[in-house]
Amino acid sequence: MKKPILLIVYGLVTSLFVLFFWYFGIREDKQNFWNEKPIGLIGEIEEKYVMVTFQSGLDYWRSIMKGFEDAAQILNVSVDFRGATQYDASEEITVLEQVIAKKPAGIAVTAINPDALIGTINKAIEAGIPIVLFDSDAPNSMAYSFLGTDNYSAGAQAAREFGRLLVGKGKAAIVTQPNQLNHEERTKGFKETISKEFPNIEIVQIADGKGNVQESEKIAESILRKYPDIDGFFATQANGGVGIGQALKKLGLAGKKVVIGFDTDKGTLDLVKDGTINATLAQGTWNMGYWSLLELFHHYHNLVQPDSEDMNGAHPLPPYIDTGVTIVTQANVDNYYAK
Amino acid sequence: MKKPILLIVYGLVTSLFVLFFWYFGIREDKQNFWNEKPIGLIGEIEEKYVMVTFQSGLDYWRSIMKGFEDAAQILNVSVDFRGATQYDASEEITVLEQVIAKKPAGIAVTAINPDALIGTINKAIEAGIPIVLFDSDAPNSMAYSFLGTDNYSAGAQAAREFGRLLVGKGKAAIVTQPNQLNHEERTKGFKETISKEFPNIEIVQIADGKGNVQESEKIAESILRKYPDIDGFFATQANGGVGIGQALKKLGLAGKKVVIGFDTDKGTLDLVKDGTINATLAQGTWNMGYWSLLELFHHYHNLVQPDSEDMNGAHPLPPYIDTGVTIVTQANVDNYYAK
Repeated sequence: MKKPILLIVYGLVTSLFVLFFWYFGIREDKQNFWNEKPIGLIGEIEEKYVMVTFQSGLDYWRSIMKGFEDAAQILNVSVDFRGATQYDASEEITVLEQVIAKKPAGIAVTAINPDALIGTINKAIEAGIPIVLFDSDAPNSMAYSFLGTDNYSAGAQAAREFGRLLVGKGKAAIVTQPNQLNHEERTKGFKETISKEFPNIEIVQIADGKGNVQESEKIAESILRKYPDIDGFFATQANGGVGIGQALKKLGLAGKKVVIGFDTDKGTLDLVKDGTINATLAQGTWNMGYWSLLELFHHYHNLVQPDSEDMNGAHPLPPYIDTGVTIVTQANVDNYYAK
Repeated sequence: MKKPILLIVYGLVTSLFVLFFWYFGIREDKQNFWNEKPIGLIGEIEEKYVMVTFQSGLDYWRSIMKGFEDAAQILNVSVDFRGATQYDASEEITVLEQVIAKKPAGIAVTAINPDALIGTINKAIEAGIPIVLFDSDAPNSMAYSFLGTDNYSAGAQAAREFGRLLVGKGKAAIVTQPNQLNHEERTKGFKETISKEFPNIEIVQIADGKGNVQESEKIAESILRKYPDIDGFFATQANGGVGIGQALKKLGLAGKKVVIGFDTDKGTLDLVKDGTINATLAQGTWNMGYWSLLELFHHYHNLVQPDSEDMNGAHPLPPYIDTGVTIVTQANVDNYYAK
């Protein structure tokens, strides 16, 4: 029996050798032994990143969540979604505190207003949990980054589309929500671009649509009666565009005035489809989710600028990522309905 | 001998089983068989990304190149650096055309001026080669993204540091380069932030340092003679800060006026170290290189927003990434000398 046992031992040793070299062959794909840094951006399933919203039922968050999930799948990490159900700052603070207590690998938060969450965000950062903000910023917090629409630039793009449709000449009105930073920036970008690039377009009125359809319809109707020769409208907010559309339909003017709306809720998309709204601006929501997770992953894995903690502690990550807007018209509106 | 052979066969079969399960255990780390998308961001060494600069000898590019290289190492791809040796637009066009001819996986370019490279960049994009711009933008080109300093915000941060050092009260001058967009934005950010947040600081003069040390020294000296009670300077450009420092030293005023400089060339850092310049702004150069490659990699591997090519073709990638600035003072200046 001695020889056969020896043969088995030989067999096993040979197999082990094969295994051993093969193991290192594979390992070299993943790890470069001459360097400390890993190769490939891959995390662990146990690594959990959390997204925190307010009014968690809003359709608007869906594509942001999809981007966050898509990034998680590629990076091999886990995600979770938590949100205040209401439009309620103290509820969002409570949810964020609960998330922080579980010490996740990172948190992406949209701030219900610029100030309410600052204390809670800073507490998490000081405890070593990376936080980035998306869609709505809290600029005075210690969060590492903000990812969202450059509203001035969105207004400028709306102005260029508007100017193109009006062939550079005519009268315009803006329906907006004064005193809300997002909307003020969109209005400013639109106004300044019109006056710089389309000097023959005159903005005759900037009106307050109060963020709802009824008020926007009322104000649009009054503008149409006051300026019957008006050529078009820009709405800085979804309900504004829908209100303008309803006023035009009521007065039999649908399709006869240029309208640029904002966002891609069903009401707006339907009016783009039927030709009442010429174009609307889709925000880069998927980008907000995807690049939020990518930034958090880099911070958690310490793949940020070398020595950045010695460099006054500022901005190891890009402090701002503009997630872009896209112009939606009849030609591509079908791609924007929720699937 | 029959029994021992059987034992060997059993041994081998068992080893094969172990091998087999172990193989799939490892493979699952890298690939999820239930999905089409790969797991982990990992490229191939054959995948080459190229960075194109002008004045390729400048120290300023070094940390940008390091960021590009660091990203390449993690992503397991190759990089190459090409540059016009001179400050010469047609030379940069030629270099870029040579790079495009080799059909790399992606190109990061810094534009010598906003217009010269547009045609060449657009040709590459149309040929399917992704391009992003870093440090200096060509905003009317079809490049997918721009990664660089938000100059308005950099000016605003300089203003806050200035206001803090002056305890919110005093007289200031700015030494800048009019008619250069970067410098106009920095000046605007500084001015508007001072007037909004530090109403008791008065800006008495905005002077043209012409981008060189001698002119900046001359103009700083004339300001110091005209306004002997001036409390400080902001230079929007490295040579401006060095010129101001030399004027202060010449008049025996070094350390007696507040100076905020820009960038981290050796001349500026030496003056921060000896206390003549109180603070200077370091641009997020490593971030420019690192995130440029990351964006190009995403485009090459088609890991951008799903359906983005059906969505009017706009912005599959974030169109702008602010790479941040950091305030450098005596406390952390040593980290900024080239290593």
